[in-house]
Amino acid sequence: MPVASTNPDILSTISSPEDVRRLSVQQLPQLCADIRRFLIDSLSKNPGHFASGMGAVELTVALPYVFNTPSDRIVWDVGHPAYPHKLLTGRQEAFATGNRKMNGISGFPNPAESDYDTFSAGHASNSISAALGMAMASKLQGDTPRRNVVAVIGDASISGGLAFEGLNNAANTPNNLLIILNDNDMSIDPNVGSLNSYLAQLTTSQRYNNFRYGAYRALRKMHLVDDRRKGAIMRFNNSVKSLLMRSHNIFEGLNIRYFGPFDGNDVNTIVKVLNDIKDMEGPRILHLHSTKGKGYAPAELNPAAWHAPGRFDVATGVRDEEKAAPDGRMKYQDVFGNTLLRLAQNDDKIVAVTAAMASGTSVSVMQQEMPERVFDVGISEGHAVTFAGGMAKDGMKPFVAIYSSFLQRAYDHIIHDVALMKLPVTFCIDRAGLVGEDGPTHHGAFDIAYLRTVPGMTLGAPRNEIMLQRMMYTAAGGNCGPMAIRYPRGKGRMQNPMIEGEVPAVEIGRGEKLRDGREAVALTLGPIADEAAIAIDSLEKEGHSIAHYDMVFAKPLDENLLAAVAATGLPILTVEDGIANGGMGSAVTEWLQDHGYTNKVKRLGLPDAFVTQGTPAQLAALCGIDAEGIKQAIKELLPQS
Amino acid sequence: MPVASTNPDILSTISSPEDVRRLSVQQLPQLCADIRRFLIDSLSKNPGHFASGMGAVELTVALPYVFNTPSDRIVWDVGHPAYPHKLLTGRQEAFATGNRKMNGISGFPNPAESDYDTFSAGHASNSISAALGMAMASKLQGDTPRRNVVAVIGDASISGGLAFEGLNNAANTPNNLLIILNDNDMSIDPNVGSLNSYLAQLTTSQRYNNFRYGAYRALRKMHLVDDRRKGAIMRFNNSVKSLLMRSHNIFEGLNIRYFGPFDGNDVNTIVKVLNDIKDMEGPRILHLHSTKGKGYAPAELNPAAWHAPGRFDVATGVRDEEKAAPDGRMKYQDVFGNTLLRLAQNDDKIVAVTAAMASGTSVSVMQQEMPERVFDVGISEGHAVTFAGGMAKDGMKPFVAIYSSFLQRAYDHIIHDVALMKLPVTFCIDRAGLVGEDGPTHHGAFDIAYLRTVPGMTLGAPRNEIMLQRMMYTAAGGNCGPMAIRYPRGKGRMQNPMIEGEVPAVEIGRGEKLRDGREAVALTLGPIADEAAIAIDSLEKEGHSIAHYDMVFAKPLDENLLAAVAATGLPILTVEDGIANGGMGSAVTEWLQDHGYTNKVKRLGLPDAFVTQGTPAQLAALCGIDAEGIKQAIKELLPQS
Repeated sequence: MPVASTNPDILSTISSPEDVRRLSVQQLPQLCADIRRFLIDSLSKNPGHFASGMGAVELTVALPYVFNTPSDRIVWDVGHPAYPHKLLTGRQEAFATGNRKMNGISGFPNPAESDYDTFSAGHASNSISAALGMAMASKLQGDTPRRNVVAVIGDASISGGLAFEGLNNAANTPNNLLIILNDNDMSIDPNVGSLNSYLAQLTTSQRYNNFRYGAYRALRKMHLVDDRRKGAIMRFNNSVKSLLMRSHNIFEGLNIRYFGPFDGNDVNTIVKVLNDIKDMEGPRILHLHSTKGKGYAPAELNPAAWHAPGRFDVATGVRDEEKAAPDGRMKYQDVFGNTLLRLAQNDDKIVAVTAAMASGTSVSVMQQEMPERVFDVGISEGHAVTFAGGMAKDGMKPFVAIYSSFLQRAYDHIIHDVALMKLPVTFCIDRAGLVGEDGPTHHGAFDIAYLRTVPGMTLGAPRNEIMLQRMMYTAAGGNCGPMAIRYPRGKGRMQNPMIEGEVPAVEIGRGEKLRDGREAVALTLGPIADEAAIAIDSLEKEGHSIAHYDMVFAKPLDENLLAAVAATGLPILTVEDGIANGGMGSAVTEWLQDHGYTNKVKRLGLPDAFVTQGTPAQLAALCGIDAEGIKQAIKELLPQS
Repeated sequence: MPVASTNPDILSTISSPEDVRRLSVQQLPQLCADIRRFLIDSLSKNPGHFASGMGAVELTVALPYVFNTPSDRIVWDVGHPAYPHKLLTGRQEAFATGNRKMNGISGFPNPAESDYDTFSAGHASNSISAALGMAMASKLQGDTPRRNVVAVIGDASISGGLAFEGLNNAANTPNNLLIILNDNDMSIDPNVGSLNSYLAQLTTSQRYNNFRYGAYRALRKMHLVDDRRKGAIMRFNNSVKSLLMRSHNIFEGLNIRYFGPFDGNDVNTIVKVLNDIKDMEGPRILHLHSTKGKGYAPAELNPAAWHAPGRFDVATGVRDEEKAAPDGRMKYQDVFGNTLLRLAQNDDKIVAVTAAMASGTSVSVMQQEMPERVFDVGISEGHAVTFAGGMAKDGMKPFVAIYSSFLQRAYDHIIHDVALMKLPVTFCIDRAGLVGEDGPTHHGAFDIAYLRTVPGMTLGAPRNEIMLQRMMYTAAGGNCGPMAIRYPRGKGRMQNPMIEGEVPAVEIGRGEKLRDGREAVALTLGPIADEAAIAIDSLEKEGHSIAHYDMVFAKPLDENLLAAVAATGLPILTVEDGIANGGMGSAVTEWLQDHGYTNKVKRLGLPDAFVTQGTPAQLAALCGIDAEGIKQAIKELLPQS
């Protein structure tokens, strides 16, 4: 189902936005079709985010057509729609061969990669704040001609508190920021929250808004609206308001001029509107409606599945993952989701909270069965945690499922709204550790380090799918205050890991001996135990004898285990899939020092740097936490090596 | 200027809200007057937060009069107005003698203290989320009669992103939450942000809103509005909307029913309105206008100065701090503020950002001279950081001044929107370490631990006012990416500390030897060096010889210094005014282990627990980080002690 085309390819002639600006307006639809064909072809083989980019093609073409990038700044929020942007900014070849690959290009806008990528993207809702900062920087530096700054934000991201803080400040600060709301009524999961219903409502009042826009254009032609002149005859907003005695617009409530909604998949309309409003004074919002997956029927029909579809067959629209034969292994998130449902079926105090990650975390499994006890609060991690705190305070047992890197947004809420009151909230931290292709913004690198500083927090990391279930049962049954359980992205290694029958609890703060050894001790946390086991097996074949313990908990530490290990005097290697500075190994080091032990310790973990993108295996090797790296580290600890 | 009264005291007969509910409505104004008299009398001698509580007296009386607390839940945001609430909930005696004192009662609502204090308060904007959680918990547990849940939030707090996330979710979830917006047009500093202008606008449309409210009451009397029945003849909101064809209300844009504004200092009006709307279905917002400092003229005239005025003379309204003779010492915040201004005068790239703490951080010093380069973005720490990131990305050098405990809200923004791009943002972290009477929500306990995990972050802590100036010059002049400078609340110990003439830079990652010693080494960070010096002096008198180094930076560590210290083989004491787990001492311990040193190390710092309230001296003693505690710790490290 690729877009049919008999015209010569325009996209291949575009090596920078300068080339886009040289096109006639009539050529733009063709360029859009070329981009779609390129994306379909390329992403079917080298997978990545699909539906968002397809929906944003026209916007991505119109922006550099109207604005003088990179001098004018376009700030993409999250950046899922950034693929077409990369194709227009000199990265077609790199995209086709290296999108999301190690030493290739990032799947998100990345300022280290291109001047056209203006700001970090990946964590939602930051574009308005960042763009406002750029607009103020331009103003303070007296740029002439003035620099235009545009924030492009989706309807899911705009519900985040940070976006609201940005809007609230943008509306009140003298600036010329243009905010483009790219509304496709769909984030990764269908949108929730009243702002979203509100956006839908705006859309239904399109006739009114079209009238307002038409009136604006007419008045402008008659020179009755002059945006640059102070004290102009009529300020557009107020004039139309007084004409109609009606203004039902949340953005104008915040004093931001509103234009829209317009068809976000009509490139000529977007160009026309952008030209109309680009030189206006003051903050403005342009509301575009686009279709996720636009131009590829299977994706339009099921945009959630096509958010990041993996490889697919272009002609049939069948995704490889649909054909994949079940191999008996399960994703950690599905082990979590199924266990959560089972727990909730047996305990009506259990509720689930997530922040626009219902399918990504598999909270959706419970949501399908008992929607009234699952709260997908939209992109608002802070609220998710505080809301869970409120429920826990009044008797419920909330399980909060959020990716590790996004939970960083809720650090204060964990401290102030949960831990301070010792509330029984269970944090189920998916995507902990290296996530692979999504790269530095998405690695779950920091959670061990920042959560172990929180007083009263229990922090566990199951080494396999069985332990995940057992830990969740422990959290649900116990009276252990706040507890965090971290587990990785992707599949585990076990066959049919779901426990039938009773699930034994684990003891909080109790580690496990996995094997004895005489020359050194490996202390691991989480599934990285498997890598350590491979390393130790290999060392055994070389005649060495290495003990291996699973710490199970980074907090509280198993002090009996540590005392026993330390008493041997053997050198100790700690291994974790999180930053080494401040992590589990650091906690072990602190404990040994506090108790007067002088065992040699080496800590393996993520470096004090942002880790790049690549396959999980490549990145683990890069960080020295794969089996080979662990083996080398142990060897360095051995006396005669 | 106390409130005159010849009536017998009603307040003294109130030992719980039950007693309030037994009063006639006619007695309530008298009770309010009694409370004000009590507050004025008590707070003039035993200081605390003043103006907020005075403004909220009527609301605090009306709530338990109408709602069946503690079964009904009142969630106070921040909790500055909570003093009158404490007086009505069995804590008059405790308030008079122990407000904000060690072993006394908290200056904020504190669930550990009373069932009437429903949730942690101190960090703004959490009340709506927490209350929504409680409302859902009640609903899921099928409470009969239904539990009313009320969030009380100020006009400053409602601009925080968390409050918006809460509103957005509340509007979309079936619940009966009542949100009371206690609007006094003033947080600690005058409010900023467009939501605030918007609230002012709502107030000016009072006639319209009064009409709507009158219409609602009339329709209700005629049984034309039945909130409990589904499919009632007319939904109030829509009916009035269609009557007037006008709805300019941001809350109703979010589908939350709006009532107000009403006079928040008229207790009978509040009682009447609360009775009218308490049993309505669905989320509602009640907008009250109150006067900060109400009932005490000096505070009404200058509410910012009377936010937390310290001791004062009731009759004259003169605050002790106005009479205090200058002693040549300066608050750290003023050293910061004056240095910032001086830097900004010499470098037009320097801008300042704060989040509703312009006077608390003394950013106000620069604000007065160059308001166009100072951005007080309101209560929105996350936005403050991302906005600064945007400015830094386009050439400015932002200094972000935020209290340590509030900066926790921006942890992710520091990582994602600043550090990832290595942007030159300087974080000036005021109130780092123990803050004293404000207690566990306000101690700056975590910043060293969580900032040192951030790749590329430089983290310094000046040991005195001179070093603060030098570090700020270094940050302004250098090209060192993100840098954090932490310093404590209150005055330093130096006389006339402002440097005349040139300010020498410090070398990033370079510590300083303060004295030599033969038996042990103390490594300190920040002004706690003074306590260590006292301890070491005392030990010298006892014949000991202790070396002392100021680390100056927690990151990067001075590796040459550490290597030299470690090579002596002496035992090492690390001392810091932040949590010991994961802090500077932990970094030192990691370094020593990484480099094969086996010096004995003891780490002093804050415990793995939330530290209570008290004077800074009391708390330092409690945590063992005062001179006496340091002395004891060193002694324990010495061989023959």
